[in-house]
Amino acid sequence: MSQQDFAIGIDIGGGSTKIGLVSSGGEVVERRRIVLGNDEADAIVGQYAHAIRDIAAAHPHARLRGIGIGFPGRIHPDNLSGDLGNIPKLDDFPLAERIGGLFGLPARMENDGTAAGLAEAMFGKDKNARRLLLIAAGTGIGVALTVDGKPFITSGGGLGNAGQLIMHGSDGRPCRQGCVGCLESLASGDALNGIAQRYCDEVPQSPLAIRARDFGREADASDVVVAALEGDPAAKAMLADVGRWLGRGAATWAQIFAPDVILLGGGLSAAGDLLLQPLEREARMCGLDMYLRNVRFSLASLGNDAGMIGAAAQIFLNT
Amino acid sequence: MSQQDFAIGIDIGGGSTKIGLVSSGGEVVERRRIVLGNDEADAIVGQYAHAIRDIAAAHPHARLRGIGIGFPGRIHPDNLSGDLGNIPKLDDFPLAERIGGLFGLPARMENDGTAAGLAEAMFGKDKNARRLLLIAAGTGIGVALTVDGKPFITSGGGLGNAGQLIMHGSDGRPCRQGCVGCLESLASGDALNGIAQRYCDEVPQSPLAIRARDFGREADASDVVVAALEGDPAAKAMLADVGRWLGRGAATWAQIFAPDVILLGGGLSAAGDLLLQPLEREARMCGLDMYLRNVRFSLASLGNDAGMIGAAAQIFLNT
Repeated sequence: MSQQDFAIGIDIGGGSTKIGLVSSGGEVVERRRIVLGNDEADAIVGQYAHAIRDIAAAHPHARLRGIGIGFPGRIHPDNLSGDLGNIPKLDDFPLAERIGGLFGLPARMENDGTAAGLAEAMFGKDKNARRLLLIAAGTGIGVALTVDGKPFITSGGGLGNAGQLIMHGSDGRPCRQGCVGCLESLASGDALNGIAQRYCDEVPQSPLAIRARDFGREADASDVVVAALEGDPAAKAMLADVGRWLGRGAATWAQIFAPDVILLGGGLSAAGDLLLQPLEREARMCGLDMYLRNVRFSLASLGNDAGMIGAAAQIFLNT
Repeated sequence: MSQQDFAIGIDIGGGSTKIGLVSSGGEVVERRRIVLGNDEADAIVGQYAHAIRDIAAAHPHARLRGIGIGFPGRIHPDNLSGDLGNIPKLDDFPLAERIGGLFGLPARMENDGTAAGLAEAMFGKDKNARRLLLIAAGTGIGVALTVDGKPFITSGGGLGNAGQLIMHGSDGRPCRQGCVGCLESLASGDALNGIAQRYCDEVPQSPLAIRARDFGREADASDVVVAALEGDPAAKAMLADVGRWLGRGAATWAQIFAPDVILLGGGLSAAGDLLLQPLEREARMCGLDMYLRNVRFSLASLGNDAGMIGAAAQIFLNT
């Protein structure tokens, strides 16, 4: 077995941070999970460093090329810091520089959606796509594009906030980030939480409502996905509606970025074809054929690890 | 007076082609207009060459740097040919190479929207913008971005078909190019033609209907602009509605491309603040403040010559 290179991938989520040792083949060979409290940036750096030392100690012979961070916000052009992430304490903080300095290793920071797209482009089943567009449909909607295996950037270290296409405008609802009548307000996990709750209020004897009560909480998007996969028609209809909205988004992104593959990832993609099929159907129905005829639609293949793998992948790509 | 450089700018429109001698200061010093019949590509080249010789003969001392073409379709990456333009005979035809070869001059081809944006960035009143986004609202909707004075490309020699943001999707109308429920179907000159005609059918005694009958034709977008500028409330309401839709588009483009200036150009921009104000208001109401607070909205300044000037400008930029 030939010796592989490795990088540390740090995926900063809203609730927790995942840190892994990732091989240059895209395999996660060791991982830790850190739940952040209301810590200051220096304390966060300390916790991350502790986990990295722990991982490195478990693999003393791994040749470590660097440390890559996936950040849930806009990235400054130096790829060392970002802002407007879910963790205000890390806004404009030189996180990559600090952690890299502690270990004497190259360090970079990438937008987390961009990182996930990069992971799919380097290690996913569609890694041979020339222009790969990833729709990460989770709590929010992220969109990332790689061209010839490299992230394509329009602004903020990714495609800006391309997931928040304005659809209904001032006739619509605000999304959790404050824009109004956007795709996220209609078709994200967050939107589906609201749809599920309103439905359960109206139909308290529905399988969805009963399922949520069994868990002693309100119904949310994950219940909709499970219920739909179990055949519940109401839950399937909700996913079909969300899929149609995402399909309008997919057609728009296709007409701007001309991808040859569009991947559906993120938490909602657990619904599989129940979400992907209405998405693809609507995109092909609405979009210009000169773009859509070149597009293949598929499910992303790296699941929840895409962000962490992609955070490490930027090190393999750039150092 | 110091000797200036010049370039030929060719702006290929649907109905006619404008050819001008443009100074490196952005001034058009000589111009011709050619109406194309159903000519073959070779005959088109002949007509363009004739006009260029004519222009050059009128300015024998002008130092000619090259010939730039603005093409109403997608541009191939070599900047020498394009496809899916309004003139099928020129699809995939090496127009720039042929015309450049005839005169022994450098020649390039740029998407016409990209050319117009480049003209505004090099010679317009907002030429100092770092990231300038031009909305060209004419028969269709074109969008172009320059970053630090250079065209920013996502696909097809421009921002793809970014004007055709899918809004209503399969619940909406098709646009003239065949996508469904897109911004062009709601807010372009073409859409406004339809809105005006439906209104005049319903209210045949309206000033707009009377005006159109005086001209012996159906009401169109230009009538709406004129009537609105004369104070007609119905026409103003139509423009306000179109402006709101364009504002949703502007917010979307702002969130992807992070411009610092958004210019409204194209034929509909003759309506001035009657279109720009509702556009800006809706964009600021719907869009994320972190993008919109950095944006200044303004009217484009080069009018109908932007395409021709920008076609020439690519020569000053690239040769």
